[in-house]
Amino acid sequence: MGFEYLTNVPLDKAREDYLKLLTANGFAPKTEVIPVWDACGRVTAHAVYAHICAPHYAASAMDGVAVNAKDTFGATETTPVTLNADQYIVLDTGDPIPEGCDAVIMVEDIVKNGDGTITIHAAAAPWQHIRQIGEDICAGEMILPSHMTIAPAAIGAMIAGGVLEVEVIRKPVVGIIPTGDEIIPPCTDPKPGDILEFNGSIFSAMVRQWGAEAKVYPIVPDIFDRIKATVAQAADECDLVILNAGSSAGREDFSVKVIRELGQVLYHGIAMKPGKPAILGCRGETPILGVPGYPVSGIIVIEELLRPLIDHWLKAPAAPRQYAKAILTRPVVSGLKYQEFVRVRMGYVGDKLMASPLSRGSGVVSSFMKADGILEVPQGLEGYEAGAEVQVRLLSPAEKLEKTLVVIGSHDPLLDELGDMLHVENNDVYMSSSHVGSMGGIMAIRRGEAHAAGCHLLNTENGVYNISFMKKYFPRGGVKLVRCVGRQQGMMVAKGNPLNIQKFADIAKPGVRYVNRQKGSGTRILTDYLCKQEHVDAAAVYGYDREELTHTSVAAQIVSGSADAGMGIYSAAKLYDLDFIPICIEEYDLIIPDHAWETPMVRQLIATLKSDAFKEKILSLGGYTVDDPGELIELN
Amino acid sequence: MGFEYLTNVPLDKAREDYLKLLTANGFAPKTEVIPVWDACGRVTAHAVYAHICAPHYAASAMDGVAVNAKDTFGATETTPVTLNADQYIVLDTGDPIPEGCDAVIMVEDIVKNGDGTITIHAAAAPWQHIRQIGEDICAGEMILPSHMTIAPAAIGAMIAGGVLEVEVIRKPVVGIIPTGDEIIPPCTDPKPGDILEFNGSIFSAMVRQWGAEAKVYPIVPDIFDRIKATVAQAADECDLVILNAGSSAGREDFSVKVIRELGQVLYHGIAMKPGKPAILGCRGETPILGVPGYPVSGIIVIEELLRPLIDHWLKAPAAPRQYAKAILTRPVVSGLKYQEFVRVRMGYVGDKLMASPLSRGSGVVSSFMKADGILEVPQGLEGYEAGAEVQVRLLSPAEKLEKTLVVIGSHDPLLDELGDMLHVENNDVYMSSSHVGSMGGIMAIRRGEAHAAGCHLLNTENGVYNISFMKKYFPRGGVKLVRCVGRQQGMMVAKGNPLNIQKFADIAKPGVRYVNRQKGSGTRILTDYLCKQEHVDAAAVYGYDREELTHTSVAAQIVSGSADAGMGIYSAAKLYDLDFIPICIEEYDLIIPDHAWETPMVRQLIATLKSDAFKEKILSLGGYTVDDPGELIELN
Repeated sequence: MGFEYLTNVPLDKAREDYLKLLTANGFAPKTEVIPVWDACGRVTAHAVYAHICAPHYAASAMDGVAVNAKDTFGATETTPVTLNADQYIVLDTGDPIPEGCDAVIMVEDIVKNGDGTITIHAAAAPWQHIRQIGEDICAGEMILPSHMTIAPAAIGAMIAGGVLEVEVIRKPVVGIIPTGDEIIPPCTDPKPGDILEFNGSIFSAMVRQWGAEAKVYPIVPDIFDRIKATVAQAADECDLVILNAGSSAGREDFSVKVIRELGQVLYHGIAMKPGKPAILGCRGETPILGVPGYPVSGIIVIEELLRPLIDHWLKAPAAPRQYAKAILTRPVVSGLKYQEFVRVRMGYVGDKLMASPLSRGSGVVSSFMKADGILEVPQGLEGYEAGAEVQVRLLSPAEKLEKTLVVIGSHDPLLDELGDMLHVENNDVYMSSSHVGSMGGIMAIRRGEAHAAGCHLLNTENGVYNISFMKKYFPRGGVKLVRCVGRQQGMMVAKGNPLNIQKFADIAKPGVRYVNRQKGSGTRILTDYLCKQEHVDAAAVYGYDREELTHTSVAAQIVSGSADAGMGIYSAAKLYDLDFIPICIEEYDLIIPDHAWETPMVRQLIATLKSDAFKEKILSLGGYTVDDPGELIELN
Repeated sequence: MGFEYLTNVPLDKAREDYLKLLTANGFAPKTEVIPVWDACGRVTAHAVYAHICAPHYAASAMDGVAVNAKDTFGATETTPVTLNADQYIVLDTGDPIPEGCDAVIMVEDIVKNGDGTITIHAAAAPWQHIRQIGEDICAGEMILPSHMTIAPAAIGAMIAGGVLEVEVIRKPVVGIIPTGDEIIPPCTDPKPGDILEFNGSIFSAMVRQWGAEAKVYPIVPDIFDRIKATVAQAADECDLVILNAGSSAGREDFSVKVIRELGQVLYHGIAMKPGKPAILGCRGETPILGVPGYPVSGIIVIEELLRPLIDHWLKAPAAPRQYAKAILTRPVVSGLKYQEFVRVRMGYVGDKLMASPLSRGSGVVSSFMKADGILEVPQGLEGYEAGAEVQVRLLSPAEKLEKTLVVIGSHDPLLDELGDMLHVENNDVYMSSSHVGSMGGIMAIRRGEAHAAGCHLLNTENGVYNISFMKKYFPRGGVKLVRCVGRQQGMMVAKGNPLNIQKFADIAKPGVRYVNRQKGSGTRILTDYLCKQEHVDAAAVYGYDREELTHTSVAAQIVSGSADAGMGIYSAAKLYDLDFIPICIEEYDLIIPDHAWETPMVRQLIATLKSDAFKEKILSLGGYTVDDPGELIELN
């Protein structure tokens, strides 16, 4: 296995070759001896044998008297036997059986005669009501085999067996080295160009979940000798090393050179996406993994290439991977050259588990947070059609997915508040919302992918919202329209309105940089309609093709000065302290399919919509009107 | 809800009333603010909102040049556009977009002219190759709702959103108070009557697994005022208190009185088994749970009555309970008056998940360690028939059960060694063995409950082991007989052989206390056969009815002086340093059903049996002969 530069080696082969090289170099678990009461969740290094029996003495299993059984032989109801004071000994449960005794008679079966003698009406069988020595554990017996995770009861069994210390596999220490001139420690006021270091925190949390310890080194600037010295130090101090390199190809990337000078690079370039630039290297027995700087790439590389090493070290993986079959809601296109890892959002609608692909941008860490699963598209496959049944690795437990209200459709920040409120009111209900615009929501309901869709679509002929669209897209019914809120739409502009925008048509003024919403969103349909009505030539509006997916991201562009105006709702303008020119009040309602109506999630949704707490919350956001939220809207 | 003394209240009602009383008294989670990088696995107290956008500046998504898109309009292959040095700015991926620029052109699409100018052959669309502000997270957006468990990616998202501290639910602190005059700290040489304190270690490990913290107080002797003072102190210092009382009814039980004097006792006596004597009490908002002293009762009481309080506090239970349907291998009889919790050993045989009830002794902590699941028999039900399909709560993950070799039959310590070796050789294979004797093993194979059964049954007519029994019990075949070991059977007697036992018939001598094996075990069949052969009247042998389940437990009775002689194998005598009178060598083989033959577990078993390491290990134990272990024995 020689050195190869920027290879495209299949992931499985890379993983296998890497482990083979490392074990040949001596990569193997170390052990340590710890008190058994600290050993829960740890893995035995060797089999554990009992030192003493439990119980370690023959003990009474009852409250009563200890006797020699022979003295009782012949006793019956009609021929009772009387024992003298020296023929029995009173004892409690757990007391040791005295020398010369071999049976216990329960206190209920004894008649006390007042003169110190007792009378019994049944013979005692030898060893009755006695807990034998070793009934629980015998000295010399194996309590636990090698490489087993120690559970709470096993701690009790070891102590009962006189084992007070246990040799366990030491937690491997993973050294994590963030590098890059542009990387700064977490703060709340970064300057343009600064990148906050959070990969170290993500990676630490991941390896700790897998049973390892994490040691994060201070950020190292892009200076070859300093990176090399830090990697050498980490290889001395840790069992595995992650070198988190800036993956920008525009500046010099020292990682490969550093690892090669300190040890060996097995592969640089894996046929996986994201994560292609990963470097599999080592210094002797110590793996040094070069991980791309983008968080999503880093998470996948660590999951796929570092975790197997930790599992190998620990012998008993902390948390086995869980898989489930799911239906893809949208097609996934993948390159033939790579094994691709696609993050998906999941939910049960009816008895079908649906998986919706999330953004594949490798810088988008929030997509990982929203992901309930990972779809692995094998190398050599072009992807999957919408509707295909695929195997998904679960990131969220299946029980949680069964309790998740899936909302797909128009974006409104109130959806997040609604999700928060219903989970607080009922911790057994979760909400997952995806923003694909009002029309996208209608399509999702038609395809059976969602429990609810937010919708605000204006019929420009009669000025009525939503109802005509329901008739058009659900001609055979099967859905309900639930009143949610009225909301103020308008033009968001910078604080103080420096370009003096007074009405919708002003977006076409020279020097105004507009930022739009995506096609299919209710706000975009409204904007297109306003253009027609106000005789604005959309093609002449600077930035009309610049599309953002949410009200807040439109507001964010304006507040940062990269755009001057955008249509959106009042609450987004208020959040970003922007000026706002009101244009209309629209009806934002929820479409709910009949098959979901009786689910606990939808029932909780309706209850929350109808609650006073919801009304108070919504009014406090500003820009909303509430008029009987949660009531059904007549569709005929 | 008044006070009731020694009630028999149904478990569900007890749990519900207890939580109702406690919440009315103010039992509710406390919160704390911690750095986000320490927050993995913790639960949010409130919704978390982003403080800044991520990215917080418009950034180049490529290496290339930043331009004003207008300057490039009209550029095509045939009408290229040349930009002067002041019309473009070179930048790398991640660099901020300079003032006045609104597009990035990739380095590959640029021709450098050498004079500082560049030429391009396609117009740039505004905002191309620019990562917009807030592409990942927008300031003001909800990153996480309330009461959600924080995953690694969420830590990254919070830091990216400028959130460095997060308010989480504080881990509740559970105070654990062991009491009892007979209780001593763990040691390796307890005196008769001493009971090692290990409940505190078990309970601590349990509550930590559920997300709480544990504080174990020093052992308190049975002195009312000292118990009361310690409980009061724990109620001051902790959020929940476990009072682990000696549950012997023979001595005074102070628990109820202590709790009543400090606060309130809601119920004393729950309709559950084990665990009936549990006490549900509190001091104001602080629950004080009186837990019986037997470890198994304690574990069940804490699982059923304390865990719901911790889950309620944490809002997001650490580990949801897993259930599976399984087939009972033996009947379970239960009292109508109680809800009963029966520990079961489990394994997949074929595609059926089998559940075998374990010892129900509440002092037998090892039974909990061996248990893979808990069968709950509802109050009012008399139990289940063998073969019934029952719902079992899993203690072992289902994946582990699928990989477990189920061995039921004759006991031999080498089975533990075999299980250890095959798991070390292949961490993906586990072994679970139950000791029910050779005949029990044959029956288990016939009922399809096991992958293998250890067997040593002598045909007294021809002196051949096992083969005739295979023919009798498997007349239509369907099983294989695999050679395992030859083993030395004989009489175990105390060191120095004080009663001068020379031959089998000496067990009938006056003064000799014999200890036997259970009916159906190969050793018992051999013993019964020897009685006939040597003309020993079994009824006249003292202790012939005293039955132990394993060779080691027979040896343990002899070494402790509670018996003088017992039949068993040499390795058990050696383990306990007993004298041994050899009687015969028997063949100990393994019966394996054809349907299990190709499973990974059986394949690994055969590979281990055939390995040199196995032979070495077995010979080192002493008392065994090995002759081609792992080979098939001809049955015709």
